[in-house]
Amino acid sequence: MPAYATNMRMKFPIIALALEIITIILFAVFVVYDDGKVFQDVHVMIFIGFGFLMTFLKRYGFSSVGINLLLAAFGLQWGLLMQGLWHLEDGKIKVNILKIINADFSTATVLISFGAVLGKTSPVQLLIMTILEITIFSINEHLVANVLAANDVGASMIIHAFGAYFGLAVARVLYRPGLKNGHDNDGSVYHSDLFAMIGTVFLWMFWPSFNSAIAEPGLPQLTAVINTYFSLAACVLSAYAISSLVEHRGKLDMVHIQNATLAGGVAVGTCADMNIGPFGAMLIGLVAGVVSTLGFKFLSPILSSKLGIQDTCGVHNLHGMPGILGGLAGIVAVALGKKDGGNAAMQAAALASSLGFALVGGAATGLIMKLPFWGQPPDQNCYDDSIYWEVPEEEEEHEESLTHADHSKNKAEV
Amino acid sequence: MPAYATNMRMKFPIIALALEIITIILFAVFVVYDDGKVFQDVHVMIFIGFGFLMTFLKRYGFSSVGINLLLAAFGLQWGLLMQGLWHLEDGKIKVNILKIINADFSTATVLISFGAVLGKTSPVQLLIMTILEITIFSINEHLVANVLAANDVGASMIIHAFGAYFGLAVARVLYRPGLKNGHDNDGSVYHSDLFAMIGTVFLWMFWPSFNSAIAEPGLPQLTAVINTYFSLAACVLSAYAISSLVEHRGKLDMVHIQNATLAGGVAVGTCADMNIGPFGAMLIGLVAGVVSTLGFKFLSPILSSKLGIQDTCGVHNLHGMPGILGGLAGIVAVALGKKDGGNAAMQAAALASSLGFALVGGAATGLIMKLPFWGQPPDQNCYDDSIYWEVPEEEEEHEESLTHADHSKNKAEV
Amino acid sequence: MPAYATNMRMKFPIIALALEIITIILFAVFVVYDDGKVFQDVHVMIFIGFGFLMTFLKRYGFSSVGINLLLAAFGLQWGLLMQGLWHLEDGKIKVNILKIINADFSTATVLISFGAVLGKTSPVQLLIMTILEITIFSINEHLVANVLAANDVGASMIIHAFGAYFGLAVARVLYRPGLKNGHDNDGSVYHSDLFAMIGTVFLWMFWPSFNSAIAEPGLPQLTAVINTYFSLAACVLSAYAISSLVEHRGKLDMVHIQNATLAGGVAVGTCADMNIGPFGAMLIGLVAGVVSTLGFKFLSPILSSKLGIQDTCGVHNLHGMPGILGGLAGIVAVALGKKDGGNAAMQAAALASSLGFALVGGAATGLIMKLPFWGQPPDQNCYDDSIYWEVPEEEEEHEESLTHADHSKNKAEV
Repeated sequence: MPAYATNMRMKFPIIALALEIITIILFAVFVVYDDGKVFQDVHVMIFIGFGFLMTFLKRYGFSSVGINLLLAAFGLQWGLLMQGLWHLEDGKIKVNILKIINADFSTATVLISFGAVLGKTSPVQLLIMTILEITIFSINEHLVANVLAANDVGASMIIHAFGAYFGLAVARVLYRPGLKNGHDNDGSVYHSDLFAMIGTVFLWMFWPSFNSAIAEPGLPQLTAVINTYFSLAACVLSAYAISSLVEHRGKLDMVHIQNATLAGGVAVGTCADMNIGPFGAMLIGLVAGVVSTLGFKFLSPILSSKLGIQDTCGVHNLHGMPGILGGLAGIVAVALGKKDGGNAAMQAAALASSLGFALVGGAATGLIMKLPFWGQPPDQNCYDDSIYWEVPEEEEEHEESLTHADHSKNKAEV
Repeated sequence: MPAYATNMRMKFPIIALALEIITIILFAVFVVYDDGKVFQDVHVMIFIGFGFLMTFLKRYGFSSVGINLLLAAFGLQWGLLMQGLWHLEDGKIKVNILKIINADFSTATVLISFGAVLGKTSPVQLLIMTILEITIFSINEHLVANVLAANDVGASMIIHAFGAYFGLAVARVLYRPGLKNGHDNDGSVYHSDLFAMIGTVFLWMFWPSFNSAIAEPGLPQLTAVINTYFSLAACVLSAYAISSLVEHRGKLDMVHIQNATLAGGVAVGTCADMNIGPFGAMLIGLVAGVVSTLGFKFLSPILSSKLGIQDTCGVHNLHGMPGILGGLAGIVAVALGKKDGGNAAMQAAALASSLGFALVGGAATGLIMKLPFWGQPPDQNCYDDSIYWEVPEEEEEHEESLTHADHSKNKAEV
Repeated sequence: MPAYATNMRMKFPIIALALEIITIILFAVFVVYDDGKVFQDVHVMIFIGFGFLMTFLKRYGFSSVGINLLLAAFGLQWGLLMQGLWHLEDGKIKVNILKIINADFSTATVLISFGAVLGKTSPVQLLIMTILEITIFSINEHLVANVLAANDVGASMIIHAFGAYFGLAVARVLYRPGLKNGHDNDGSVYHSDLFAMIGTVFLWMFWPSFNSAIAEPGLPQLTAVINTYFSLAACVLSAYAISSLVEHRGKLDMVHIQNATLAGGVAVGTCADMNIGPFGAMLIGLVAGVVSTLGFKFLSPILSSKLGIQDTCGVHNLHGMPGILGGLAGIVAVALGKKDGGNAAMQAAALASSLGFALVGGAATGLIMKLPFWGQPPDQNCYDDSIYWEVPEEEEEHEESLTHADHSKNKAEV
């Protein structure tokens, strides 16, 4: 298999260690302590939430939670540097809890994009994506927050829409014609769906903390908690309702439940701290649940077959469309005067900037990731942990089933 | 199968969406922001704790964690309205974090009752139960807290005993003679028991937050944390000891460990913020662990065979008897002067009220749920996700085992 | 099997209940309320973190999470007493949240040692280990903190190194020649590795809380959070890099990922609240990840084959060596003046004391645990839940596979 140098023995350790050592040197030069706030809820979303949400694939759980940990652990260090460079004090980045929360946030963009390319990329490719995506994210974030002075407290635009469209652009560049008819391992088993629900529920529960973490303390922060809490609650009902409506015999589909129930958290992000009323938040959540579920059912297959965008986790439905919805809701809310000092034009510019940086940055990053020596897996080894992980033998159920069949056959033939 | 209209295609989406839209309208009319406190620990208990605790069934994990999410997401909205109607300010419900905690609490009653009927009810039946139970709960809560002015800081009576006996009354009305000899799917497998332990341990860890969440800040709140912490710790020892004592060869039984270890949290609820001493809390926990474990071993089979109460999760043992024990402990503690301003007669009235509303309300709710058009599952499809969920093929182990056997047989016969 | 009285029916319940009753009496005599701080993050590490980290074994998940709960629940009560006896006020132990955090901490030593002997000991043996280890721990802790006045805010020495070497000494005394060629059940399956990752990720996320929980509020506490956060992040990169470097075809090994990614939290413990700079913390984490991964790969097999130390979870690699590394880093940091009032000689004495108490105490405890009537399992039943637990039938996959084979065979023979 000369085209697929998937042996990671030298390239992964060298790149991973080199990155860490460079990062430490940069920390030695730039980073000192400052003081702080709580961050653990966001941390749980990044490491448990995103990590387990992606364990739904039957043979890709090690990578989902393991590579999620790797990318987030590196990403938070890189994010602290990239974000901090815009705000040096005496040539130093003063670390405090707010900076740590923002570093965690910056990794979320990468983890969203990871969802789009899940199962089809090597750890080395993903480390490269992490560096490039966080760097580009930091530029866009600076532009949106400081130059345009737009509101995006829960980051519907700068994290969710950005991460989704960046990942979709990468996925488009890495299009694999060989997977257009699907892949045996691109699906769940009963237990893997339950593992994924650990991710879903932790994301769902702690989303109010995500959307309020960097809000102004006091009423705006409380408003962000309450709006997010009710938007998510309403979103659950609409996601379940639409799932049952579009599936065979009114059944529920785990893909929808695992993902679309969270769309309300994404979509209410931009206006989470605005005075939109709890019912306004619920309307946003309701619509997000509908849009997201319909996206999974009807739009994703079209993106894959017509546009060559193979979006493994459906990030377009959970982060992409709900992120845009959040940006639009923010424009409307600001135009209606729900946020003191807001400017609807700047909100629109922020949305456009986030989408632009995501698509262009993602396409460029995809081209770099496509270079042949990063060890991407051949089609037949996609969605399979065993190409990059030592996997324990004989317990994987499909494997086991084959073994059984063979054993029985042998016995029968004797 | 004309008697069982289990196709949820129109009825579930319509009811779920209609409920959500009505709720949003009610929010638009009634609900505005106020200000706040932490709530995430209670949130984790409701969504991860209750949800995963019920995943012990081998083929019912999607429903356990998924329908738990649905009922809790709807219930917290409905609970906020029902509880808020007793405390309108200028015709509005002012939402703050305390109200959110109470809304989460109100859903706990439904999730406890859900445990009693787990595997035997449709999502539509359960949404109806949610509306009715939370409405009745809110009346009883108002009576106990405001009219009787009884103490029940950790809600042994108004949540645990109420939720359990409400659910048991529903289960009695929905009695299924066809299940009196058990059901193949009414049991666990190795992995499902481990998923359930995620629920157990999160409930166990965060129970001190549950029992102290609405306590007066300062010493009463700290007392509630400490009493619950030690009651639970003592309860673990007695639950393990009694499990080993009553099982074959001194083995431990997962059903006891998953549930009876939590009984100390239930039973110490009413007097959590009283000056009963850490050792008093431990005695309550010790007794609760014993009562709960013995209930699982000896009482549940009798309730099922003699009284027609088929209690899937054994909520009588985890919430029912320990809840009553908590109410009784509260009467004694107040009579002994452990709570300033407490009145033992009012405590007794609160316990009686909670049980009365639960049994009558549950029976009435059960009769409504029994109406034939809510899509309850036929006996043979009980405890099986596949009737209401799209379930991935061939990975479920029992299924797989049948498939293997068939394959082998075919091969052998050839 | 006369040598192995593994029937727990009388001995386990009697010992467990007797311990609990004695503890309650001691609480009645000694323990009263005081006031407080947050503790839930540490609680999650103890009960979810340690519990699930050990579920990696294919047939030992019930014991891992269940016995972890038992030992921690008893240990925190016993720890509160043992630690409190050194600080009586008017003959009473005044419980506050700080004391609860310290009680949780004391159980960590036992849970670390449990990892060394996992799968080879009965619940009764482990309760005895809990009593003895926490008692000895409390003496060493008092010596280190109050007599030597050494710094060990994150407890690299007094918890991690102590717990590891105590457990290794016990394991040495309980050496089983019959297991020197391994055991079929001493390994993971795909799903058990994912359950273990729940433990890993919760430990990883909340370690900043562990290392800062008892730090002085303000800058030292914030410093402990930040140092731990970055040490862990750097450690992930080096653990992944070295794992890939030493494994076949550059693959990653779950054992390394589950454990060595946490070594940075252990190793930065002693100097977590010192002014070592974020990059200093990262260097410590980087080295810890390397040392820990190499330990799993090269040292553990030698300890087992040459020294008769059968360390089931590899606690030497996660807690032992990184704990010593932390102690050494503390000596150097104090010598470099990174902590006001620190004394490098006292740091060295603290490390020596912790190792000495651990090895001597562990050896003595091992001798007591070796007495034949505590019901340790025979070699063939090691690493198997079914000796101490009721295990659901037919779903365990290896079991199932045998059953299938038999069925097929029978059918074929007919």
